[in-house]
Amino acid sequence: MSAAGEAPLVGGDFGLLSPVWAGSRAEAMTSDAALVDALVLGEAALICALAQAGIAPASTEALAAHLGQVPIDPRRLAVEAVAGGNPVIPLVQHLRESATAAFGHETANWIHHGATSQDILDTAMMLLATDVLAVVAEDLGAAADRLAELAVRYRGVPIVARTLGQQALPTTLGLRVAGWLTGTRDALHSIHALQPLPASLAGPVGTAHVYGADGPAVLDAFAGRLSLSAPTLSWHTRRGAVLGLANALVMVGAAGGKVAADVLVMSQTEIGEVRESSGGASSSMAHKSNPVRSLLIASAARQLPALAAVIGTSAVAEQERPAGAWHAEWQPLRTMLRLAGGVAALTRDLVDGLVFDEDALARNLELLRSALGEDETWTDAHLRAADVWVDRALEADQGKVDDHDLDGSLRRGPADPP
Amino acid sequence: MSAAGEAPLVGGDFGLLSPVWAGSRAEAMTSDAALVDALVLGEAALICALAQAGIAPASTEALAAHLGQVPIDPRRLAVEAVAGGNPVIPLVQHLRESATAAFGHETANWIHHGATSQDILDTAMMLLATDVLAVVAEDLGAAADRLAELAVRYRGVPIVARTLGQQALPTTLGLRVAGWLTGTRDALHSIHALQPLPASLAGPVGTAHVYGADGPAVLDAFAGRLSLSAPTLSWHTRRGAVLGLANALVMVGAAGGKVAADVLVMSQTEIGEVRESSGGASSSMAHKSNPVRSLLIASAARQLPALAAVIGTSAVAEQERPAGAWHAEWQPLRTMLRLAGGVAALTRDLVDGLVFDEDALARNLELLRSALGEDETWTDAHLRAADVWVDRALEADQGKVDDHDLDGSLRRGPADPP
Amino acid sequence: MSAAGEAPLVGGDFGLLSPVWAGSRAEAMTSDAALVDALVLGEAALICALAQAGIAPASTEALAAHLGQVPIDPRRLAVEAVAGGNPVIPLVQHLRESATAAFGHETANWIHHGATSQDILDTAMMLLATDVLAVVAEDLGAAADRLAELAVRYRGVPIVARTLGQQALPTTLGLRVAGWLTGTRDALHSIHALQPLPASLAGPVGTAHVYGADGPAVLDAFAGRLSLSAPTLSWHTRRGAVLGLANALVMVGAAGGKVAADVLVMSQTEIGEVRESSGGASSSMAHKSNPVRSLLIASAARQLPALAAVIGTSAVAEQERPAGAWHAEWQPLRTMLRLAGGVAALTRDLVDGLVFDEDALARNLELLRSALGEDETWTDAHLRAADVWVDRALEADQGKVDDHDLDGSLRRGPADPP
Amino acid sequence: MSAAGEAPLVGGDFGLLSPVWAGSRAEAMTSDAALVDALVLGEAALICALAQAGIAPASTEALAAHLGQVPIDPRRLAVEAVAGGNPVIPLVQHLRESATAAFGHETANWIHHGATSQDILDTAMMLLATDVLAVVAEDLGAAADRLAELAVRYRGVPIVARTLGQQALPTTLGLRVAGWLTGTRDALHSIHALQPLPASLAGPVGTAHVYGADGPAVLDAFAGRLSLSAPTLSWHTRRGAVLGLANALVMVGAAGGKVAADVLVMSQTEIGEVRESSGGASSSMAHKSNPVRSLLIASAARQLPALAAVIGTSAVAEQERPAGAWHAEWQPLRTMLRLAGGVAALTRDLVDGLVFDEDALARNLELLRSALGEDETWTDAHLRAADVWVDRALEADQGKVDDHDLDGSLRRGPADPP
Repeated sequence: MSAAGEAPLVGGDFGLLSPVWAGSRAEAMTSDAALVDALVLGEAALICALAQAGIAPASTEALAAHLGQVPIDPRRLAVEAVAGGNPVIPLVQHLRESATAAFGHETANWIHHGATSQDILDTAMMLLATDVLAVVAEDLGAAADRLAELAVRYRGVPIVARTLGQQALPTTLGLRVAGWLTGTRDALHSIHALQPLPASLAGPVGTAHVYGADGPAVLDAFAGRLSLSAPTLSWHTRRGAVLGLANALVMVGAAGGKVAADVLVMSQTEIGEVRESSGGASSSMAHKSNPVRSLLIASAARQLPALAAVIGTSAVAEQERPAGAWHAEWQPLRTMLRLAGGVAALTRDLVDGLVFDEDALARNLELLRSALGEDETWTDAHLRAADVWVDRALEADQGKVDDHDLDGSLRRGPADPP
Repeated sequence: MSAAGEAPLVGGDFGLLSPVWAGSRAEAMTSDAALVDALVLGEAALICALAQAGIAPASTEALAAHLGQVPIDPRRLAVEAVAGGNPVIPLVQHLRESATAAFGHETANWIHHGATSQDILDTAMMLLATDVLAVVAEDLGAAADRLAELAVRYRGVPIVARTLGQQALPTTLGLRVAGWLTGTRDALHSIHALQPLPASLAGPVGTAHVYGADGPAVLDAFAGRLSLSAPTLSWHTRRGAVLGLANALVMVGAAGGKVAADVLVMSQTEIGEVRESSGGASSSMAHKSNPVRSLLIASAARQLPALAAVIGTSAVAEQERPAGAWHAEWQPLRTMLRLAGGVAALTRDLVDGLVFDEDALARNLELLRSALGEDETWTDAHLRAADVWVDRALEADQGKVDDHDLDGSLRRGPADPP
Repeated sequence: MSAAGEAPLVGGDFGLLSPVWAGSRAEAMTSDAALVDALVLGEAALICALAQAGIAPASTEALAAHLGQVPIDPRRLAVEAVAGGNPVIPLVQHLRESATAAFGHETANWIHHGATSQDILDTAMMLLATDVLAVVAEDLGAAADRLAELAVRYRGVPIVARTLGQQALPTTLGLRVAGWLTGTRDALHSIHALQPLPASLAGPVGTAHVYGADGPAVLDAFAGRLSLSAPTLSWHTRRGAVLGLANALVMVGAAGGKVAADVLVMSQTEIGEVRESSGGASSSMAHKSNPVRSLLIASAARQLPALAAVIGTSAVAEQERPAGAWHAEWQPLRTMLRLAGGVAALTRDLVDGLVFDEDALARNLELLRSALGEDETWTDAHLRAADVWVDRALEADQGKVDDHDLDGSLRRGPADPP
Repeated sequence: MSAAGEAPLVGGDFGLLSPVWAGSRAEAMTSDAALVDALVLGEAALICALAQAGIAPASTEALAAHLGQVPIDPRRLAVEAVAGGNPVIPLVQHLRESATAAFGHETANWIHHGATSQDILDTAMMLLATDVLAVVAEDLGAAADRLAELAVRYRGVPIVARTLGQQALPTTLGLRVAGWLTGTRDALHSIHALQPLPASLAGPVGTAHVYGADGPAVLDAFAGRLSLSAPTLSWHTRRGAVLGLANALVMVGAAGGKVAADVLVMSQTEIGEVRESSGGASSSMAHKSNPVRSLLIASAARQLPALAAVIGTSAVAEQERPAGAWHAEWQPLRTMLRLAGGVAALTRDLVDGLVFDEDALARNLELLRSALGEDETWTDAHLRAADVWVDRALEADQGKVDDHDLDGSLRRGPADPP
C-alpha cells in the first residue's frame, strides 16, 4: 500500500481524517516538507543578515544559497528531532556537515551563528503562518466579494428570521447574507491587524549575546530579509503574537462557521431554503445529498477554539525558555493554520455555489404570516427595516481596505539583493 | 437593590473558591447586583435614545430616571430567569409594572421598546467589561510603570538565564524585568484596541424593525449614551467583538502569568532569588512563606484559555439568534472578567513588593560561571549584550500611549444631557 | 452561618447569568455557605477520627460538635482567604479561636491536627460532589424511567430519521427515545463507578507524619465518618479521582445534551414534531414559545468539556503540592457540579413534559416516502428493524442496578455514633 | 527534498512538530496507511459476519480475503474523501470496483452491505485505539514495574518535600516514587476498564434495517470477528465510549506528566537531585543537557485535555447522525492516541534511566533541617511516617491485575476460522 520508493511510508499523515484541509493549499504550505523549507530559509536569511551587519564576510552569501540545496528528508529529521526535542538541532547538524564539505569548517560555522533553535523554529512557523494567512485572505476576500453581490441581489427577498430554533419575524435574505459578509470582513480585519508577523532572533537566552551591541541590527536585517517584523524584545516567553494569531484563526473559523451553521439550518429537508452547488454522496443512501462543505466547515470551527486554548495556556512560559509550554504549541498551531485554511477555501466554494430556493423561502414565510394573521404590508415593513441595515453593511464594506493585497510571496529568498 | 430581608442567604457565591478575585474591584463590578444595574442602565439609555431620535416623547426622560429606582432583587431575578432562559424577560416585567403604577400603561410601554433580551444583556455585559477593563488597565498600567523603574534599577545586575529548567547563560535582572514590562504593555495594547466595546440594539431578529428607517439613528444614540460604539450590523450572531474581548483577557492572564511563573521559579527555596513582599501562611507549617500572589495569578492564567474556548465555540451561532450558543457565553465571560481583574490587581501588588536577593542572584550565577570556567569578563560581555535590549524596551515603552486614560466612568447615566 | 447583618450585599453571584442552575438543588448544595458547612464537617470528622484512633482523647467529641456551631460568614471568609490563598487557613483560625474560648487552648489544638488545607478542601469538595451526584442520579434515574415508558409507548410510531441535517430513512420514535434512555443509563453508570469518592488526609507533604504509623488508621476512620473512600496514598498531586469525576459530569452533559439537541431539531417550526410542556416567553415577540429547557441544557453541555480541560491540565501537579494547578481546579469543578446538576434537573423536567405531535411526525415521514416513491410496506420493514433494537435496549435497561439508591444523606455528621 | 518516486511528497506529516510521538509505535499504528488497513479490515469483517449470520453466501469469504489485497493510496484517498466528507465513501468505491473485476457485480455488492460510513470509520478508530492502548499498557506496565523497584530501593532515602514551590518537610524518595507508581496504575486501570472497545454496525440510521431482525446477530458476529464489544444500541450519536477513551488518554498524560513535572523540578541546576539517563543537546549551548524526555511528556500532557474537550463537545450529536460533531472528533482522537502513546513510551524510557544524585538530595534536605534547627531524629520520624505509605502503595500494587495482558494482536483477520 502506498510505497514511496524503497522506503516504506510509515507514519505519514495526509489528511485522511481531516477532509476539511486534505488537498488544500494550506496543507501543502504547512507540510513537514514546507516546514523544512522554512527552517532552511530562516538559516539562510540569518547568514545574509550577518553579512549585511558586517559580522560575517560578504562571501557567505554563497553559503546561504547552498543551504537550499542540501537534501533533507523530513521523515528522518522528525525521528532525529526526538533526541534533542526539536527539529532544528539535527537540521543544523546536516546543514553544517554539507557546508563543511563544500566550503570548509570555518565558513560552515556561520550557520546558526548566534541563534537558538527557538529562533529558527518560531521564525519558520511565522513564515508558514504568513503563507497560510495570504491564501486565507485571498479565499475569504473572494468569498466576501461574492457575499456582497448576494446581499445586493437578495436584498428584496423577504424570508423568515429564526431565533432559538423557532420562526420569529421576517428579515431579508440580503440582510442575512450581509451578516455573513460583515463577519467575513471582521475576520479579514483581524488577519490584517497581525501583519507582518514577527521574526525571532534573540539567541539562547534572549540577549543575542553573540552579536554584542549589534543584536538589534542583526535582528532588523534578519526580519527584513524575511518580510517579517522585528520585535522590541525576545518573544521566546512573551507569546502575545502567537495568541493574536490564534485568535485570528478562531475568527476565520467563526466567520466560515456562521455561514455553514445557517446553511445547515436552511438546507434541512423540511426547510429546504438552500442547497450547496453539489451535494455530498452517502455510502449507504443513494438518494441523499449532504451539505458537505458546511459540515466540514462546522467540524473545523469546533476544533479551533480548543486548540487555541493550548496556545493560550502555553503563553505562560517561565524564565528565558520554558520546559514544555513552547513544545506544546507547535502542532496545535499548525493544525489551526490548516483548519483555518480549509475553512476559508471551503467557505469560498460554498458561497460561490449556494442555490437558494425562493419558493421554499416564500413558503416558510407564509407559514409565519398565517400563524400571525399578518398580510403583505407587514412583510413589506419588515423588509424595509432590514434594508436599511443592508445599506449600512454595504457602505461599511466599501470603506474596507483591499483584502486581496496580502502577499505571502513578498517574502524574499536569501539570495535576493538586499 | 438586592437586600435579603429575612430571606436566608442560599446559593450565593462570594469567591470562596476564587481567592484570585475575591474582594476585588472586578468582582464587585461583575456581581449579580452590578449586572442588574447595567441591565437597568441599558433599558434607561434606550428610553433616552428613543426620545433623542424623536420616537418617544421627551417626557419619557422621567421614566428613564425612574427605572434606576425600581427595587430589584438579583436573587429572585435569577430564579425568575429560568422560565424564559434569560434575566431580561422578568426584569422588563418588573420595570413595566413599577412604571405603569407611576406613569400609566402608555408611558410604561416605552420600556424595552423595539429591543430584544439579547440587546440589553449583550449591552450590559459590554458595560461590565468596560468597567473591568478600566481597572485592569489601571492596575496593569501601574504595574508597567513599576516594572519600567525596576528594569532601570536592575539593568546592571547580571543573573543566570534559565532555559528548559537548566542554567544556561547570563542575562540581567533588568532584561528579565523588561520582558515582563513589554508583555504587560502588549496586554494593555490589546485592551486599548478593543475600545470602545459595542452596544447592541438590533431588535428581535436583527432588523430593529420597530424603528423602521430610524434603526441606525436609535442605535447610534443608544451607543452614544453608554459611551459604547455602534456596530455596523447586529452582532447577535456575529461575535467577533466578544472573541476579541476574550483574547484580550487571555493576554492579561499571560502577562501576569509570565511574571508569576518567573517568580515561582526564582522563589524556590534552593534558588531563593526573590520573594514576595509578604508570604502566604500555611495551615500546617508555621515556617512556610508561600508565594501566594504568584500562585493565585498562575491559577487564573490556567483557567482563562479554557473559558475563552467556550466563547470561541459559541461564536458559531445559527440564524438570527441561536439555541444555546449565546446562553453558554455569559457565565464564562463574567468569570474571565473576574479572573483578569484579579490577575491585574495581584500583578500590580506582586511587582510592587518584590524583594530580590542580590546575594542569591550572584551565588547562582557563580555556580554557572564555575561550571563553565568563565571569568568576569565573560559576565560583563553578556551584561552589555543584554543591556542593548533593555534600552530598546524602554525606548519602545516611552512611545506607548498613556494607558491610564481608559475611563469606565465616562459612561454617562441616562439622565445626563445628550 | 453567613448572615450579612448591616453589611451590604456586594459581589454575590446567585446564578443570574446561569439560568441552567439558578435555584437548583445543585446550586444550594455547592454555595459558599454549603462549602463552609462541608469544610467544618471535615474538620469535625477529623477530630472524631483522631479520637477513634486513640490519638485524641474521647472527650474531644464535644469539640467536634462545637465546630458546627461556630458562626462563619462565607463572604468574610472569602476575602480572608486571599492572604494565604485558600479558605481553610482563616477558617481554622476562627474555629480555634472559638474553641479556645469554649474549651481552652489545649483542646482547641486538636482542630486540624495533622491535616493540611488541601486535605480539608479536597475532602469538602468530594462531599459537595457526593451530594450533587446523588441528586443528579435521582434526576437522571427518574428521567430514565420516564424514557423507558416513552420508548415502549412510541415503539410503534415510525418517524423520519435524519443524518447530516437531511431526511434519511425511517426509524421509530421509540428507538430514538431508547437512544436517549441508553445514553442516560451510560451517564448513571459512570456516576456509580465513581462511588464512593475519596477523602484526603495526607498531611502537609503526603506522609501524614503527625500520626506516625497511625496515618492509615486515621485516614480510614476519617473517610469512614464521611462515607467517603480511603485512598491508597495521598492524592494531593495524583488527581485521577478528580479527572474521573469531571468525566462523569461531562457524561451527564452529553446525556442531557443529546436529548436537548434532538428536541431542538424536532421542535423547529417547520418540523414541529415535538414541543416542551410549556414554552419560554420572549421579551419582544409575544407569539413565540421557545424550547427553553433544551437550550439551557445545550448551553451547559457546551461549557462542561472546556471546564474539564482545566481539571485535566491541573492533573499534572509537581512535587508534594503544586503552585497553581490545584488552586485552578476549585471553581471549575464547582461550576461543573452546578452545570451537571442543572442539566439533570432540566432533563428530567424536559422528558416529563414532552408533547409529541404525531401528525407532524407522520407528515414529515410522508415527505420522505413520496420523495423516494415508497409505500407503507417499506415503512413497516423499517419499523420492524428498529423495534428489534428497542427490545435490546429495554432488556439491557432491566439489567441495570437501581440508580436511585445513591444516597448523599448517608454521610453522617460528626456527632453521630461511630 | 524528500521525493517519493515520481509522486511529489506533498502535505505529508511525519511528526516533525511532534517529537513526543515521532517514530513511535503509536504513530505507526495510527498513520493514514494504518487507518486504511483498519477500514479494510472492518469491511472484510462485515462480509464474514454476513456469511456467519447466513445473510451472505459462505463463498464471500474469498471476497473478504480479496479486500486486503486491493491497493489503496492513502494520499489519494484523503483527497477523494473531501467530496463526500469522509474516507469510507471513496474506499468502498475502490473496493467494489476491484471486487467486481475479480468476482462480478453480484458478489462485489456484499461489500459494505447494510453498513454506513460511520460504522466502518468508528469501528476502525476503535481498532486503532485498541492497538495503541495495548502498547500504552505495555509501556506503562513496564514503567510501573520499574517504579515499584525504585520505590523499594529508595524507601530509606529521606528527601525534601516541596509544596507551592517551597521546601516544606521531609518525605522519602521511595514515597515520591510510590506516588508515581500509583498514578501509573490508576491510568492502567482506566485503560483496562474500557476493554473491549465497541464495534459499530447500526446502518445508516441506527436500525441496521438491511438486516431486518438479524441486526443484533450480525453486529455480534462483526464485533466478535474484530475482538471488539457489541453495544446495546447504535452509538452514532451516543458517544460515552469515546468520552471514556478520551478520559483514559488524559489519565495517561497525567500519569506520565506527573513524573515529568517532578523530574523537571528536581533536575533544575540549583536543585540537581536527578537527571535523565542522557540529556538533550542544545543547538546553541554545548554545555547544556536538557531533560528532554520530561519536557516532551509535559508538552503532550498540556495538549491532551484540550483535545478531550473537542471530543466532549462532539458528544452532543443531534438526530441519527450529526452535521459536524462527528467529523470534528476524528483528528483530535487520533492526535490523542499518538500523544498518549508517546507519553507512555517516553515515561517508560524516562523512569528506566533516571539517575538520582543522593548527595544533592541530602544537601537540599540539610538546607531545610538547618533552617528549622532540627536534628536527625526529626528526619527519621518523617522517614518512618512516609514508609508506612510506601508499604500501603506496594501492597495495593500487588493486588492489581497483570497489566501486561492487554493484547491488541488478539484481533483476528477476517480470513481466520470463526
